[in-house]
Amino acid sequence: MGGDHGPSVTIPAALAFLKHEPDAELILVGLEDQVRAELKKHHAADNPRVKVHNATEVVAMDDPVEVALRRKKDSSMRVAIELVKEGQARACVSAGNTGALMAISRYVLKTMADVDRPAICSILPNMKGGPTYMLDLGANVDCEPHHLHQFAIMGAVLFEAMEHRRPSIGLLNVGTEEIKGNEVVKATAPLLRADHERGKLNFYGNVEGNDIFKGTVDVVVCDGFVGNVTLKAIEGVSRFFKSVFMETTMSKLGALLARKSLKKLNPESYNGAGLLGLKGLVFKSHGGASAFAFEWAIKRAYNAAQYNVQEQLSAMIAELMPRTPDSQAPGSTIQQG
Amino acid sequence: MGGDHGPSVTIPAALAFLKHEPDAELILVGLEDQVRAELKKHHAADNPRVKVHNATEVVAMDDPVEVALRRKKDSSMRVAIELVKEGQARACVSAGNTGALMAISRYVLKTMADVDRPAICSILPNMKGGPTYMLDLGANVDCEPHHLHQFAIMGAVLFEAMEHRRPSIGLLNVGTEEIKGNEVVKATAPLLRADHERGKLNFYGNVEGNDIFKGTVDVVVCDGFVGNVTLKAIEGVSRFFKSVFMETTMSKLGALLARKSLKKLNPESYNGAGLLGLKGLVFKSHGGASAFAFEWAIKRAYNAAQYNVQEQLSAMIAELMPRTPDSQAPGSTIQQG
Repeated sequence: MGGDHGPSVTIPAALAFLKHEPDAELILVGLEDQVRAELKKHHAADNPRVKVHNATEVVAMDDPVEVALRRKKDSSMRVAIELVKEGQARACVSAGNTGALMAISRYVLKTMADVDRPAICSILPNMKGGPTYMLDLGANVDCEPHHLHQFAIMGAVLFEAMEHRRPSIGLLNVGTEEIKGNEVVKATAPLLRADHERGKLNFYGNVEGNDIFKGTVDVVVCDGFVGNVTLKAIEGVSRFFKSVFMETTMSKLGALLARKSLKKLNPESYNGAGLLGLKGLVFKSHGGASAFAFEWAIKRAYNAAQYNVQEQLSAMIAELMPRTPDSQAPGSTIQQG
Repeated sequence: MGGDHGPSVTIPAALAFLKHEPDAELILVGLEDQVRAELKKHHAADNPRVKVHNATEVVAMDDPVEVALRRKKDSSMRVAIELVKEGQARACVSAGNTGALMAISRYVLKTMADVDRPAICSILPNMKGGPTYMLDLGANVDCEPHHLHQFAIMGAVLFEAMEHRRPSIGLLNVGTEEIKGNEVVKATAPLLRADHERGKLNFYGNVEGNDIFKGTVDVVVCDGFVGNVTLKAIEGVSRFFKSVFMETTMSKLGALLARKSLKKLNPESYNGAGLLGLKGLVFKSHGGASAFAFEWAIKRAYNAAQYNVQEQLSAMIAELMPRTPDSQAPGSTIQQG
């Protein structure tokens, strides 16, 4: 039901996904009438690999987290997450309200043992042709060094499980030298360096904003404030570029000629951010995602389930995650809209 | 002498600037032989509006701030700033090491009364066709609410003096609602809101990363960590776009057709960041600036001198700037590379 467009985007995406993944099955959770009507429109009312699961409420994109969590107990979002908890689904994908998705996921699934705060991990394209994983993207706006340390471990585990190679980790900073940075980042580097020396993490060191796209490292670690602002600024520049190409006939023609190369930059195929540190797989699609982009988010969740990301996360976190005194600290804030 | 290319870029830029500004005069500060040789190469050895001022040392792009400040006392950077202090120059422009430029400027010129920490204010293009001023861009990585408050005032004064209209101010955040943000940002909003209610500032409220390019507000306020990372991420995306256009013959042709529209995005004409809160005008060019871009930085400094930005800053800061208890606090760190 979620996202800016609802079932008119999510259902065609789901059907396209099933066409490309012949072994996959989907449970569509939402207002049953609407979902079935949309399926019928696409001549898929009887698709044997689609189950429709009714939910009587929908979390709106601008619902406060409290409303989504406390008042809409039969929302499509909550019911979908409960299906993961009950083991009826191996992963949940939503294009809805990020803050609500994180809050409900934490409430229903609970946080993994040894994880202080779940984080949101996005995937961006880089100039080397590979993906750059970046976290946190907005779940945690005030972080301590041990939180960034945990994000690094969770990001590394997700990357290795999804991409089948050991990632290098960079700490997002204002310069590459060790003396640079704010107090939190300066105190985080030694924690990551120590893990590197023990062979637990492949810590590259500090990276700067432009390294995200250079592909200097595989996983970029930052707090949720910096991550959210940076990601949205990147989206803003990209939209600016697009708008400039739509200005004149000449620029439109230019964009047409360059379209094959421009595809590299297409953020649509990088849709699908992982909510990490929960006792279950939840993926977040961009709210404005097209059907093509939403299909990518489903595919990412499907791959995560196939590659047993949840089990790998559990095992590796148990091995790697440092125990911290404030595992139950109430300081975590869920804030992304 | 500064920047990635030194006099081979800065001197052609200086000469082009003089051609476009028939009333301007320039003092070129640097290794005299090199500067004169470059002038000669451009048939400008006898230009009556160019003075060459010798300096025996050069701050390298990777010199630690301490080396630049304590050991290179006759550097071109320091001598140029001293000319501003002595009133021989009305503004200084450098493409050199940002950290060194800020440190030497603070040491030589001193901070203005009532200003806790100078800030770096960059200018970015936006989709409305206007400039977006953004500060701080890296001088202050750990900020308290009253620092952000002061940045807002300094940015507003610079904008009004340079653009001849009263700017709207936005506080960079992870969402637009008042309850969003990290602790520092949440405590800053009421300070700006109070100035707004007293008619001192035109405070719009919180803005998000994508608002920088939307042109939602004229001045975007953030701490130096967030500003530096965001700006470099933006540069990274832009470089990624450029590289994609250079990939194939088709994409090159596309870029050629769209070049008129793409000019809007050209960061070169937005070169020239102001160091605000010092007793003198200092502008920072991007280190990798082309001659065209460096000319823009000179032009910006020239306009700031013409429009009496320094005097306006003094007057308006005396009127607007809240007195804070820690005016002499040692917490300020200069860190941008």
